[in-house]
Amino acid sequence: MKLGELGEFGLISRIDAASSRGIGVLKGIGDDAAVTILTPGMQLLTSTDMLLEDVHFCRSWHDPYRLGRKSLAVNISDIAAMGGIPRWALLSLAIPADISIDFLDEFTRGFLAMADEYGVSLVGGDTCASHDSLAISVTIMGEQFADRILRRSGAMADDDIWVTGTLGDAALGLKLLERGLDFAQPPERYLSGVEGNDFLISRLLDPTPRVSAGLTLTEAGLVTAMIDISDGLLADFGHIAEQSGVGGSIRLDHLPLSSPFRSLASHLSADLQFLALSGGEDYELCFTAPPDNRKKIADCMKKCGIEATPVGIVTHSPGVVAVKTDGSPCNTQTNGFIHFTHLLP
Amino acid sequence: MKLGELGEFGLISRIDAASSRGIGVLKGIGDDAAVTILTPGMQLLTSTDMLLEDVHFCRSWHDPYRLGRKSLAVNISDIAAMGGIPRWALLSLAIPADISIDFLDEFTRGFLAMADEYGVSLVGGDTCASHDSLAISVTIMGEQFADRILRRSGAMADDDIWVTGTLGDAALGLKLLERGLDFAQPPERYLSGVEGNDFLISRLLDPTPRVSAGLTLTEAGLVTAMIDISDGLLADFGHIAEQSGVGGSIRLDHLPLSSPFRSLASHLSADLQFLALSGGEDYELCFTAPPDNRKKIADCMKKCGIEATPVGIVTHSPGVVAVKTDGSPCNTQTNGFIHFTHLLP
Repeated sequence: MKLGELGEFGLISRIDAASSRGIGVLKGIGDDAAVTILTPGMQLLTSTDMLLEDVHFCRSWHDPYRLGRKSLAVNISDIAAMGGIPRWALLSLAIPADISIDFLDEFTRGFLAMADEYGVSLVGGDTCASHDSLAISVTIMGEQFADRILRRSGAMADDDIWVTGTLGDAALGLKLLERGLDFAQPPERYLSGVEGNDFLISRLLDPTPRVSAGLTLTEAGLVTAMIDISDGLLADFGHIAEQSGVGGSIRLDHLPLSSPFRSLASHLSADLQFLALSGGEDYELCFTAPPDNRKKIADCMKKCGIEATPVGIVTHSPGVVAVKTDGSPCNTQTNGFIHFTHLLP
Repeated sequence: MKLGELGEFGLISRIDAASSRGIGVLKGIGDDAAVTILTPGMQLLTSTDMLLEDVHFCRSWHDPYRLGRKSLAVNISDIAAMGGIPRWALLSLAIPADISIDFLDEFTRGFLAMADEYGVSLVGGDTCASHDSLAISVTIMGEQFADRILRRSGAMADDDIWVTGTLGDAALGLKLLERGLDFAQPPERYLSGVEGNDFLISRLLDPTPRVSAGLTLTEAGLVTAMIDISDGLLADFGHIAEQSGVGGSIRLDHLPLSSPFRSLASHLSADLQFLALSGGEDYELCFTAPPDNRKKIADCMKKCGIEATPVGIVTHSPGVVAVKTDGSPCNTQTNGFIHFTHLLP
């Protein structure tokens, strides 16, 4: 069957039939608006992200199942970064003529698998035909008690700067895809590196939102500010610094790097280390906390099965610098992914 | 200044600076997620609509100010259709290279003017560069007490079918724009009809969401089901019928038509009457109510300064028919705007 035969309402019914109703959902897909109820006493958290073909993803790299997962994951990550509980999502799709129903079914399967893993209910959206490429717009809603919501603005001088997981994997995965995996040459390297390559690429195509880490940290009251790392640590910690009226010093040699990243980076240009600082799409959490909380944070993270690493110090003076082992500043021109720069003359 | 020089964060700051904070907003633009609080005891209403260039609007017809207004209005209309109070909006823009900052400023001015008129706060969104055409995705959140939320599923056999305002104006406005206004020929007609043409076109480009009508009707407890008319009365009442397990009979000669519509339609093909039935983009409310409420509804609507008209009867038997003055059924093949049909072979 073609999408044209299925029609808009056929497509919506197909998505609706595949989705399940979760906490707080009184009316999901099928009315003018979804009707949901918040947990008494909690505040509403809302965020939205657009994913555009050939800007945020390429169909030649991104299988529809993992594209569906990622479309929701990057949104859930914003709720995680507030210390929130993700609850409900809206999904809008602008669909070009060359997209098949199989593609949409796989996309939906991935989206709903991610939703189930994080207790999110798909409660509405919009579908329309596009003359151009595929565009995906997702809105996520979550909730949390007022005193547990973590903003960007609470960092204090002398706090530690922390990150969860490892950095730069997704950015290196992107380089692998862009160059058709030929980084991994010569052949023996390619063969021995296949597993690692898959890991790096998977970190790009199927990121994991750090919901349990965010919740555990905020429930324990250990953290002063938090953000998720989508544009690179340097740029995203920069938002914390700006909104908290502080600065920061990040130790390049403290950045947590995965084995596949180290292995591939070791026989490549040293510049690749900067991918860990400003490559983007990590979807790890960056947070600040008083140095006294260091052991408690390590314990908390162990409970979640997630590594977290202190990578620097919040400073009184504004501006964010990355420093080498000897304390000398790095050249940090690459300041995260900047939209619209391709429009410059 | 070009958009490339302004950058994503410059653009967001510009939009943020122009927007005001309204009811329930604890944190608007500038963190990972917006933080808002619902009125105690109320439930959350959420809806989203995407507007794509050359699918939902043309930049050659639609000035950016009214495009901004309409982008929010069609979303507010969904909250109105639930009997809800609109509160907060998220705005995502995929922006092609040929869009100027002036265009975006005017778009934002229109969006925020509509927001102010309806007490809506812009609390977040996303902006990115598009390789294709302009894409706009808006999410609206509203609220209402449980017993005042009006769904599509409550219509009862023998209820009246009502519509607010007049139908078909926007669809005829679209025809005027598509044919370069030459409907209004000969010249003397064109001259005498200018004001009416502007009215019809304005109904397309700058629709009015019927929030006060929806609220007044639900607060008075007069209505059994409600929907907003975006795809044409026939298609949208069809959703009420389907979800209520009923049918309906709509009297073609009872459809409320504006003077400009009547005037232009009178010297054009009689088929244009069908625009009032299935043209779409009216953004009026269609609702059902017991016949005993007829006078009270008329009084309520008078208070809102809005006309409402009974246009038919809910029937036990499924299916929606439109009937002529003599009671004979019309041919109603044109069943509202159907997405994806251009993808058919």
